[in-house]
Amino acid sequence: MTRRIRFNAFDMNCVAHQSPGLWRHPDDQSHRYKELSYWTDLAILLERGRFDGIFIADVLGTYDVYGGNDIAALRQGAQIPVADPLLLVSAMAAVTEHLGFGITTGTGFEHPYPFARRLSTLDHLTNGRVGWNVVTGYLPSAARNFGADDQLDHDTRYDQADEYLEVLYKLWEGSWEDDAVVRDAARGVFVDPAKVHHIGHRGTHYTVPGVHLSEPSPQRTPVIYQAGASPRGVRFAAENAEAIFVAGPSKRVLTQTVSRIRDALEAAGRDRYAARIYALATIVTDETDEAARAKHEEYLSYASVEGGLVFMSGWMGIDLSRYDLDAPIGAVQSNAIQSAVAAFQEFDDDGREWTVRDIGRWAGIGGIGPVFVGSGATVADRLQEWVAETDVDGFNLAYAITPGTFEDIVRHVVPVLTERGAYAEEYVPGTLRNALFGAGDRLPEEHRGARYRLGGPGSTVLSDAEARPGVVVSAP
Amino acid sequence: MTRRIRFNAFDMNCVAHQSPGLWRHPDDQSHRYKELSYWTDLAILLERGRFDGIFIADVLGTYDVYGGNDIAALRQGAQIPVADPLLLVSAMAAVTEHLGFGITTGTGFEHPYPFARRLSTLDHLTNGRVGWNVVTGYLPSAARNFGADDQLDHDTRYDQADEYLEVLYKLWEGSWEDDAVVRDAARGVFVDPAKVHHIGHRGTHYTVPGVHLSEPSPQRTPVIYQAGASPRGVRFAAENAEAIFVAGPSKRVLTQTVSRIRDALEAAGRDRYAARIYALATIVTDETDEAARAKHEEYLSYASVEGGLVFMSGWMGIDLSRYDLDAPIGAVQSNAIQSAVAAFQEFDDDGREWTVRDIGRWAGIGGIGPVFVGSGATVADRLQEWVAETDVDGFNLAYAITPGTFEDIVRHVVPVLTERGAYAEEYVPGTLRNALFGAGDRLPEEHRGARYRLGGPGSTVLSDAEARPGVVVSAP
Repeated sequence: MTRRIRFNAFDMNCVAHQSPGLWRHPDDQSHRYKELSYWTDLAILLERGRFDGIFIADVLGTYDVYGGNDIAALRQGAQIPVADPLLLVSAMAAVTEHLGFGITTGTGFEHPYPFARRLSTLDHLTNGRVGWNVVTGYLPSAARNFGADDQLDHDTRYDQADEYLEVLYKLWEGSWEDDAVVRDAARGVFVDPAKVHHIGHRGTHYTVPGVHLSEPSPQRTPVIYQAGASPRGVRFAAENAEAIFVAGPSKRVLTQTVSRIRDALEAAGRDRYAARIYALATIVTDETDEAARAKHEEYLSYASVEGGLVFMSGWMGIDLSRYDLDAPIGAVQSNAIQSAVAAFQEFDDDGREWTVRDIGRWAGIGGIGPVFVGSGATVADRLQEWVAETDVDGFNLAYAITPGTFEDIVRHVVPVLTERGAYAEEYVPGTLRNALFGAGDRLPEEHRGARYRLGGPGSTVLSDAEARPGVVVSAP
Repeated sequence: MTRRIRFNAFDMNCVAHQSPGLWRHPDDQSHRYKELSYWTDLAILLERGRFDGIFIADVLGTYDVYGGNDIAALRQGAQIPVADPLLLVSAMAAVTEHLGFGITTGTGFEHPYPFARRLSTLDHLTNGRVGWNVVTGYLPSAARNFGADDQLDHDTRYDQADEYLEVLYKLWEGSWEDDAVVRDAARGVFVDPAKVHHIGHRGTHYTVPGVHLSEPSPQRTPVIYQAGASPRGVRFAAENAEAIFVAGPSKRVLTQTVSRIRDALEAAGRDRYAARIYALATIVTDETDEAARAKHEEYLSYASVEGGLVFMSGWMGIDLSRYDLDAPIGAVQSNAIQSAVAAFQEFDDDGREWTVRDIGRWAGIGGIGPVFVGSGATVADRLQEWVAETDVDGFNLAYAITPGTFEDIVRHVVPVLTERGAYAEEYVPGTLRNALFGAGDRLPEEHRGARYRLGGPGSTVLSDAEARPGVVVSAP
């Protein structure tokens, strides 16, 4: 049977998200990120292309590893200025029916109590089309503006994130029963108080005794996305995620990553395929292979090496401004850089030794994933080959220019894949979770979040005597 | 010259905002607060009526003073469930051109750094139509779910709010120069780093050294709303607010309040009319006085006395469940309640002594403001009389049922006031601030926020040596 391939659009509320310098291209519209119509038009386009969703990344700091300051990032507009992702959703939801919205927020930046309500609100307003990409934060510049000297160390951040999710699951899954809102005009009862429970959370980082402020939304818990690649990150993802974003420039690297994740899902008591895995990729396509190659060359002529190095420096924690652009890559004393470059070269091997400039050039279009260049049929061949060999479920598609890259994909690649039976002919109606797994709107029983439902092993709901002293309302 | 009257719609992301029980009315649509079309249709209606804006209140807790628990609030749907207000804005902005959006959030619930970006994002997306209603929080149940035993005491909350606004002003007004975003394709420069400043804030509650994440939005600082009535609240409003919401059931009470606020504005070095003052009111209107009176009687038959007492108990901090509904008001040992009732009776004097039931009944439609009942002409008479005598600029209009109350106002009252020259014939184009004052998009020089502009007396921006050690970028 032909394997179905899923597309997700990778975006951010900023200029030239993962393609620094491409804002100079005359067709790029990303400087219009401040306009509502930029986003609503994009949402309509992606829904026409039957994308699973739009995934909006975020940072709350600047990329200031390169050169030790924010000058190059500002000059390049490299994810600065950057605006809030959550606030785009309701406008895009109003003009679409099926498209999912995967929103990135960090567990270290907002208390879980109001955050739980934010996502419940969006899940209501979108009729259950919200996903949440959980990040624990990685830019030290963000932590500093929250008054910390630096961010918490990596594993402590994940421990805190574990409790953050516990609070959220208790609020989303365990506070309101499905039939709590009765809206009984005759009796004058809007909510049956006996069916609304105080979660009674007392933990290391958070104390949240009360009820969730929102009534149950279509999905309750939004679809959980994650992108952590460290061992601790993979464990966290295996326990929580339903969609996982991976980035690797070669099939070999991706195959290892995917297999590691699927093993971890099993180790967490879930099915190997309980999470959809999307691989970062960029597609440059046109009517013919030749036209696509010419387009790619043209894009490269706008790519900013400095911008690519700003991102690579931030991602790897190495200041690449210290090296001459023409220095051979062997001069860079960093295992992370060396192994990233080795993986890049595997994808695009022309036999010569790479320089620092090549790193920036590579990272300058679409980040550290592969760039597939060719006609719709050529690109479809490669996507199918990658899915078959690596076991990913689909691709998280960055843009070179926007909306041009997405228009090209919808025009040239989607029809070919659909014709081959490798792409959905229509959306599965209903919530994002149901569209992804076809098994209903709510978290499955095997998922960690289900433990916090009323009566579940993780539930800490208060008794009536504790929650509402002196009255008898219910026996939870 | 006929004085212009301004309308603002008073709403909340919940059921039957200030009219508990009215969700049972067959025409009330407020249970649809979870649907986007409920909000977009309302926004279109309000813009047709040339309302200045929609003001969306918020709480992050439950009303649990009445009876000492949340049971009655839940049963009545009294502002619980309650959803996030910010997330409604982009959808409503996409279907309107002029309507302002006044969003309530508390200064105690989110760090100012990400919050500054949220409002800048909305100011961009709405083309400068965002207002922010600053609250310091008043429900102890909210504080408890943030892990505190109780909220900070009243004056400490305001001190913290002072610093919260200082951080925001520095980010909004003092970090990015107007011409920082150059988008110079030829030079490959998106932002001129020399024009983006690190704010260098080190205070008692917050340390925020860095740059604002957003580029300058049309208004930079959103229009600041406030509703505090205490002496400390009035001082805070006089220093910061550009729109002030007041609530008083009689002209005498309102006149005193308005005069106190205008004096405070002068004491803060501003013009007496530097803030627009809107008085809470509810309008029940129809073709004739008789039809309006019948409609009011019908609404009252749906009003929930218990719901009204839940709100009054929360607002006053007195558990009114301890009293028999038929107890005379003199039995309630509370100066706050006594003076509120005295003011109510002044508006609606039928000579008899009030009972506890009367308080709940009164507060059950539109809260503690007056209810004006009559034909369009009758209501217009009263509104003009109140504006002339009290010196308010307009009204913050609660609903009995929604959107019915607003439809009635647009149909019956707006045309009469417009005909009399007492209501705008069309919107002033541009930002909300310009629509309110006709003096441009930005804060005026006399406003506290202007002190934090680059070169202003409150600016703390870092030098290059501090912000970007080892390089020379600019001389702030």
